[in-house]
Amino acid sequence: MAEIFSAECLHSFSASVLRHCGLTEADAELAADVLVTADCRGVDTHGVARLWAYVRLFEKGKVNPQPKVTILRESASTATVDGDGGLGLMVGPRANEIAMEKAAAAGMAWVAVRNSSHYGMAGYYPLQAITRDLIGWSMTNASPTVAPLWGAESTLGTNPLAVGFPAGKQPPIVIDMATSTVSVGKIEIARRKGEALPAGCIIDSEGLASNRPEDYFEGGSVLPLGGDREHGGHKGYCLASLVDLFAGVLSGANWGPFVPPFLAACENPPPVGKGVGHCFAAMKIDAFMDLDEYRQRVDHWIETMRSTKPAPGTDGPLIPGDPERQVEQQRRESGIPLPESLAQQLREIGQKTGVPLANP
Amino acid sequence: MAEIFSAECLHSFSASVLRHCGLTEADAELAADVLVTADCRGVDTHGVARLWAYVRLFEKGKVNPQPKVTILRESASTATVDGDGGLGLMVGPRANEIAMEKAAAAGMAWVAVRNSSHYGMAGYYPLQAITRDLIGWSMTNASPTVAPLWGAESTLGTNPLAVGFPAGKQPPIVIDMATSTVSVGKIEIARRKGEALPAGCIIDSEGLASNRPEDYFEGGSVLPLGGDREHGGHKGYCLASLVDLFAGVLSGANWGPFVPPFLAACENPPPVGKGVGHCFAAMKIDAFMDLDEYRQRVDHWIETMRSTKPAPGTDGPLIPGDPERQVEQQRRESGIPLPESLAQQLREIGQKTGVPLANP
Repeated sequence: MAEIFSAECLHSFSASVLRHCGLTEADAELAADVLVTADCRGVDTHGVARLWAYVRLFEKGKVNPQPKVTILRESASTATVDGDGGLGLMVGPRANEIAMEKAAAAGMAWVAVRNSSHYGMAGYYPLQAITRDLIGWSMTNASPTVAPLWGAESTLGTNPLAVGFPAGKQPPIVIDMATSTVSVGKIEIARRKGEALPAGCIIDSEGLASNRPEDYFEGGSVLPLGGDREHGGHKGYCLASLVDLFAGVLSGANWGPFVPPFLAACENPPPVGKGVGHCFAAMKIDAFMDLDEYRQRVDHWIETMRSTKPAPGTDGPLIPGDPERQVEQQRRESGIPLPESLAQQLREIGQKTGVPLANP
Repeated sequence: MAEIFSAECLHSFSASVLRHCGLTEADAELAADVLVTADCRGVDTHGVARLWAYVRLFEKGKVNPQPKVTILRESASTATVDGDGGLGLMVGPRANEIAMEKAAAAGMAWVAVRNSSHYGMAGYYPLQAITRDLIGWSMTNASPTVAPLWGAESTLGTNPLAVGFPAGKQPPIVIDMATSTVSVGKIEIARRKGEALPAGCIIDSEGLASNRPEDYFEGGSVLPLGGDREHGGHKGYCLASLVDLFAGVLSGANWGPFVPPFLAACENPPPVGKGVGHCFAAMKIDAFMDLDEYRQRVDHWIETMRSTKPAPGTDGPLIPGDPERQVEQQRRESGIPLPESLAQQLREIGQKTGVPLANP
């Protein structure tokens, strides 16, 4: 059973709860937009389902509600930003704003962020860039759940990478992907359903291949994209490393096994830097070619990929961002279905924070 | 049986052959350096084994031996470069030089390249950046051999991505990976040996999963990194698209199924842009943090990944670039072993071009 809520209702509820946690009105609006955009796009794991976890971080004093986000170092096209221990959901949009403004002025920009926390759905940030006709990037590191190839313990996160390309008449291309084989969410679902995982996605606590979801939760690890060596697991390990080196090492944040956990109840590992790390980049298209020419070229690319001969049993290739956009069209119109248990959880948050959740 | 050649010998031979093809002395030196660096690092598929294919491109008039490489558009941190139909092995290093110079001056730079051809080993370019204490990127598109997920025909190339990070006391981190499950070279080897491929790496001409190498050569396609949907093949497709959009679409080059083939005998598809496309980026580390602090942090990252508990039957995780560096140390000392058939092929090129190949 699901209850249906409008995006506006969930946005206003989330923003109010976050204001109750101490965020300024402007920051609460930014953070609520990141959360509810995920719900609208069907990325349910990164939407209001996580509101309770963010609230717990404030309750435990693990996040600074009114951080002073500062630029530590900058040039026309680069910056290192310190999030002052703030919520990733508002540090992220502010740092992304710096990247977009610098790109608009200088052609391109790359911004490294330290001292932040979980920043929500990676794809949110390039979506912002696209509205300004910029190509946008975002990457973040995350607490360790992934083993490097040939390792038997988690020393990397699912470290997602998102890149968005504006188009012309076609909708934009929005890549948003973890660099692991599967998400921890997918392993949880398999465990709940009592199903086996596909081969090559996880290892157990000894580092042996497994398809039992339980093995992950008993000290196992997710494998990097590609899985084992012969299927290209070294490439997924390279990608997870790339994200960690840019978002964690170069920014001055924690990296690898030292990235702080998202769940407030888990203990932080010893620090090797400050908070969680992200990076954002933006590129002005007419720094490279006329915007009109680019639009026609991207449209042609999209039409070509879409008209590829379909594999049997499929409708043919999708364009990155298609599934999320289709869900968004529907949910912006007809509302966002939340499982009853989640609606109940939101009501409990509402009671605790004195913010009523409007009935659907 | 293998014959052993010194790097110097292969470099001087390749440079002389390319001068015979019409390259200037400086360009021939650049191109030979790209080729022989691949041989030294054990990336045998991208070294002198391909010299004949480059020579054929000149014989067929498909490459301009003395191109005027020009900057079409630029800002302090961006450029679009036209390779004037030149050899990728010299257009690439020249465009990479532009990226490195701009980064040194402006903090970071991103250079898109059109109207080039095959640029050799992707990892060559970040290796150059590392010698200047820069983080370096390179990406190139390639002629179609890879199907998008749920497609039954090749509309993307193996589209490699290479990124290099300087370190401190540790050797640098050098990522150099195709965005496909396997390389065409690996499929050729399996066919020659009569072995099956791992499941999930290729599809046949109908788009059905296959492990028969023959199926690839009879109109099949390589799958993107991840393989099928449940192992994350959509993510590999996103990565191959990302490389094509940056290297092909944004640069003004050909993209996707329209990228010209490397082999001179194959007919070019109808053009949607100019030549093959690449992109190069470089980032100055002290634009983000002090170089010394960065060096210590990267060293710590490397030591941490290296000391991850090993998976059973392995020596534990490698650092990206380890295998190539180990081969390079050995080959720079003891020489490069070439299969007898390849040594013979080089001698034939030598006879045709009047350039003697020194005996090992």
